[in-house]
Amino acid sequence: MAMEIERKFLVVGEAWRAQTSRIERIEQGYLSNVAGLTSANSSVRVRVTDEQAWLNVKSVTLGVSRQEYEYPIPVDDALVMLATLCEGLVEKQRHYVELDGFIFEVDEFSGANTGLIVAELELDAEDQPYPKPAWLGREVSNLPRYYNVNLLRHPYAHWSASEKLGE
Amino acid sequence: MAMEIERKFLVVGEAWRAQTSRIERIEQGYLSNVAGLTSANSSVRVRVTDEQAWLNVKSVTLGVSRQEYEYPIPVDDALVMLATLCEGLVEKQRHYVELDGFIFEVDEFSGANTGLIVAELELDAEDQPYPKPAWLGREVSNLPRYYNVNLLRHPYAHWSASEKLGE
Repeated sequence: MAMEIERKFLVVGEAWRAQTSRIERIEQGYLSNVAGLTSANSSVRVRVTDEQAWLNVKSVTLGVSRQEYEYPIPVDDALVMLATLCEGLVEKQRHYVELDGFIFEVDEFSGANTGLIVAELELDAEDQPYPKPAWLGREVSNLPRYYNVNLLRHPYAHWSASEKLGE
Repeated sequence: MAMEIERKFLVVGEAWRAQTSRIERIEQGYLSNVAGLTSANSSVRVRVTDEQAWLNVKSVTLGVSRQEYEYPIPVDDALVMLATLCEGLVEKQRHYVELDGFIFEVDEFSGANTGLIVAELELDAEDQPYPKPAWLGREVSNLPRYYNVNLLRHPYAHWSASEKLGE
């Protein structure tokens, strides 16, 4: 078990691109919770990157701290699950941006979520100080619509102007 | 990936007990699909036996053939998931009964499903012949209420007399 402490932010401008050390293509889907199962308290994610795959279980609670479990699985298993058991896919390019010993993961979405770019930062404690580069915008950790699982139901293409501003 | 081909039967009488070679205590819960998510096409199970734990993904389709993936996970992870992420538990004792090279898994449920005993038999093909001992009762492979995930929602204690007869 692990507690994941993660902050999520909007991204302003393009300056972060020049600081990217690595780019990874990610495709993921969900085995639960997709059709609005309001009483569920977990989500189960299937993720495939260029070469690896994982099954990931997270508690569904608002805010920056969540229970998280991640297990590597065969890529072939994951591809069949994505194709046959998951309803819809979230596709994104993950850009790794190192700054002062921290690694920001800047996710640039595609498909129905094209235009959405968010930066995630994993921390050791909720009150841990972290760098705030100029391109780091409004924090959206507490807004459920930014959860990847919710981007399937209500993709960025359908958001209102104020939703897109992280309000 | 694997296709699981499994037949499920009611059990008649007690003669199978004397043929049991091993008994295992099983506790399991589900990370999805519990609250009546009708459009989901998979279930995700957390299972703990006396010494081991697994995460299991199954396609939700009626009948004897289902897609199945099973991954070992740390027991400590599974115990926390069962306690905090799963809604309700299914508890049973699994009795392994060998017969003519086949292994019947006879599950004797407890808790809200006390009284329910079913025998499961994994096969290599849907049309594979299998032994039919006298204690093997009506086949219930096609009855969703016998799915373990459904025993959480609608436990045996609440079944009608005809439901209990496998009708």
